[in-house]
Amino acid sequence: MRTKTPSESRTIMTDMVLPSETNPLNNLFGGELLARMDRAASIAARRHSRRITVTASVNHVAFNRSVPLGSVVTVEATVSRAFNSSMEIYIDVWMEDRISGEKVKANEAIYTFVAVDETGTPTEVPKLKPETELEQQRYDAALRRKQLSLVLAGKMKPNDATELKALFTK
Amino acid sequence: MRTKTPSESRTIMTDMVLPSETNPLNNLFGGELLARMDRAASIAARRHSRRITVTASVNHVAFNRSVPLGSVVTVEATVSRAFNSSMEIYIDVWMEDRISGEKVKANEAIYTFVAVDETGTPTEVPKLKPETELEQQRYDAALRRKQLSLVLAGKMKPNDATELKALFTK
Amino acid sequence: MRTKTPSESRTIMTDMVLPSETNPLNNLFGGELLARMDRAASIAARRHSRRITVTASVNHVAFNRSVPLGSVVTVEATVSRAFNSSMEIYIDVWMEDRISGEKVKANEAIYTFVAVDETGTPTEVPKLKPETELEQQRYDAALRRKQLSLVLAGKMKPNDATELKALFTK
Amino acid sequence: MRTKTPSESRTIMTDMVLPSETNPLNNLFGGELLARMDRAASIAARRHSRRITVTASVNHVAFNRSVPLGSVVTVEATVSRAFNSSMEIYIDVWMEDRISGEKVKANEAIYTFVAVDETGTPTEVPKLKPETELEQQRYDAALRRKQLSLVLAGKMKPNDATELKALFTK
Amino acid sequence: MRTKTPSESRTIMTDMVLPSETNPLNNLFGGELLARMDRAASIAARRHSRRITVTASVNHVAFNRSVPLGSVVTVEATVSRAFNSSMEIYIDVWMEDRISGEKVKANEAIYTFVAVDETGTPTEVPKLKPETELEQQRYDAALRRKQLSLVLAGKMKPNDATELKALFTK
Amino acid sequence: MRTKTPSESRTIMTDMVLPSETNPLNNLFGGELLARMDRAASIAARRHSRRITVTASVNHVAFNRSVPLGSVVTVEATVSRAFNSSMEIYIDVWMEDRISGEKVKANEAIYTFVAVDETGTPTEVPKLKPETELEQQRYDAALRRKQLSLVLAGKMKPNDATELKALFTK
Repeated sequence: MRTKTPSESRTIMTDMVLPSETNPLNNLFGGELLARMDRAASIAARRHSRRITVTASVNHVAFNRSVPLGSVVTVEATVSRAFNSSMEIYIDVWMEDRISGEKVKANEAIYTFVAVDETGTPTEVPKLKPETELEQQRYDAALRRKQLSLVLAGKMKPNDATELKALFTK
Repeated sequence: MRTKTPSESRTIMTDMVLPSETNPLNNLFGGELLARMDRAASIAARRHSRRITVTASVNHVAFNRSVPLGSVVTVEATVSRAFNSSMEIYIDVWMEDRISGEKVKANEAIYTFVAVDETGTPTEVPKLKPETELEQQRYDAALRRKQLSLVLAGKMKPNDATELKALFTK
Repeated sequence: MRTKTPSESRTIMTDMVLPSETNPLNNLFGGELLARMDRAASIAARRHSRRITVTASVNHVAFNRSVPLGSVVTVEATVSRAFNSSMEIYIDVWMEDRISGEKVKANEAIYTFVAVDETGTPTEVPKLKPETELEQQRYDAALRRKQLSLVLAGKMKPNDATELKALFTK
Repeated sequence: MRTKTPSESRTIMTDMVLPSETNPLNNLFGGELLARMDRAASIAARRHSRRITVTASVNHVAFNRSVPLGSVVTVEATVSRAFNSSMEIYIDVWMEDRISGEKVKANEAIYTFVAVDETGTPTEVPKLKPETELEQQRYDAALRRKQLSLVLAGKMKPNDATELKALFTK
Repeated sequence: MRTKTPSESRTIMTDMVLPSETNPLNNLFGGELLARMDRAASIAARRHSRRITVTASVNHVAFNRSVPLGSVVTVEATVSRAFNSSMEIYIDVWMEDRISGEKVKANEAIYTFVAVDETGTPTEVPKLKPETELEQQRYDAALRRKQLSLVLAGKMKPNDATELKALFTK
Repeated sequence: MRTKTPSESRTIMTDMVLPSETNPLNNLFGGELLARMDRAASIAARRHSRRITVTASVNHVAFNRSVPLGSVVTVEATVSRAFNSSMEIYIDVWMEDRISGEKVKANEAIYTFVAVDETGTPTEVPKLKPETELEQQRYDAALRRKQLSLVLAGKMKPNDATELKALFTK
């Protein structure tokens, strides 16, 4: 199975904020953005694995900026690390003001997808080899996030989460 | 501002999995469930605060079970802790098999909402007083989650996250 | 086939009025509410019968109050009487003002569903045993409604509709 | 205010049954058809009154035939009688088999709409003058339906519902 | 295979412009109108051919008038000429002002559909015989449009497009 | 007003074909693709002009390949030529097979958008300067298409459409 690079899975989904997706303040509903990010991440996971992919988990997502009706929103999803059958997907969201064209980071999110066969059984995925410095940073941090997630789920002892433990004990 | 109980905000949203919400395995898209949970959580936050509420963050969400087309899905959202202007909402999702009627836990999720006024400025919310044992557990854990979230965002030093540090240093 | 109680089928569907569901007065379209009530009633009928259920008829529905954009709407559907393969479902709709939290009855509706097998053939459903006084009243009235519906459809002679006739001849 | 004929309000809405509108038997959801009929009836009411119109009630609707995915459905809505500010709309639904082209009556429904001004206050509507025999029959029956509806709502004494009483006492 | 007339395929789709279909100027999105016209044209093509029909091409469509939120839009689609397995569909779009009831032509469009069997293979369709003068004009012009389309696609030499050439060389 | 390049407006919209967007052959509806292309083209036009943009016309669009449910579809829209207040947008559509990852051209389309101010009045847009050979070809052909469109609309005499006339008279 050929090792792949992040750029092979990068998925760009640019679309408008439509009136049916807004809350009483006329901003994009958080839930709509979560669903868009899920679709983009799912495509990135599929491009990396060439398999059916299903959402396994959503990491902590912070909504720092509201996205007003009429904005152009770009969701960019890239595989940041591949494990056995799971892939971490890093998602960057930008919005573009209609008039000024100014492009600002609206938020970031991290989803995990699992590759499955037609019966829903997890299957192996290719390894990922980061190329840029940012890709390397995200690749390294992915391991800490996986450990944190296992610790919080009670599937790893805190003492074995070596990468994570260092944060609290130095 | 009167202290409220979790049961005052509890929101139940039962609905079917419709054909337009399914992935190639005929299961509910993760993104659709994220959007439904966001709407239910938003209503719970509004019932607690009587304000417009906007999604501030989504905690780690794990999708342990796939939800097939034709299932009845119940999303139950309850405020688990109130801070100054933010509220943590705990969401339990059950699905019900069409034929057997069997009801199983499909997943859990934790969202944070902020109460805002008409201009989008955060405003104070009532305190929460847990009543049942489960509500008390979730109330206590909410503080650890807030600390973790502040540490990960670089807004709190790991050493000050006393509740959290205990996990790794005992 | 075990007799069931109304509470075993009770279905609660709380959701917001979204911008895409409103008419030119910014109130919920009647048709959207009819569709939401149909989904909730369908789940109640399924919970009672554990079968696929299809809409057989909609009784007289009055829209007494308009439901503005931004309201929280709760649709509560309960089986009010079971016949051979059909079930009458009583639906209560409340709306909640976003700011005051005031909860008012928005309307009531009565739908009839039929339980069918995979080929669409009607199949027997469990009997219903009302428990509360309100449940008993609705159970009794269901028979009059069934007679009225048969008379209006020309399938029962007015003179045989004993319950109904009493209304006009006393 | 000029008296109008039924043909001036007749509204034809032909569309397909899309995959997102079907139940587990691959037939059109009752609720979707109720919503389509509401939109068509609303347009007929608007054509008669030239006002904003809102759904006031839905009369007994029977779903006699299931409408499979892929059918072409024609909803035809016509004002059948005008009262002060309300209008009764009679709706005929046909479906067309994709292959044979056979056109069969799928169901009938009767909705009542009220004409309102920009503040939601009911306003007067033109009288209706039926032209064909079918239009005359529906026009006459509309009065009985209105009486029945008033009796059932407790707003008219059964003894005053002269048209209706005749059904049960002759 | 029996020759058919345009009136046998005529399809009328009247519906409102809903809030979820509008752009920042509160007018119907061009893309939504294109999709509505496609559904209406698809039904007209099916009525003519009694086959599954798929969109083959969209001719030049001009949007001369914007269609505001709250308008009633009528899309009328009719087969204007049948070739071997393809059909040209002529679409007229009217909009109706909510208050005045004034009905104006909003635009025209021409789509081509192909009739296919269950495997997607093109199959023969009945001939079309125009009846009115307008139908005859559109029938004649359909041949020029087909030649133009073949020339632009490089599948016909300009010199063989006799009908079309006349336009430029007289 | 600064001249812009095509790459400044390029808009990439990658998304899946969802079950609610498919026809009876389980392929993407032509109308849905037309609507997606319209949204992407609208964003490209906005990026070039920094104005509200409305669809003015759709050029001949050919659907050469059907796009099955489960495909990943990439719509890429770029301004190909700017006139006074109108812009021609060239749209390339690729689809990606879920399993092989093979990427094939599904179709091409050309839309024209007009930049307008808040009152809907057309306003001037920046000039476009093509950079690559393909961009230059499309830029040149845009003039012929504009002439053809004016001739067909009866707004230009065939003899004045110099670029176009050459096709038929050499």
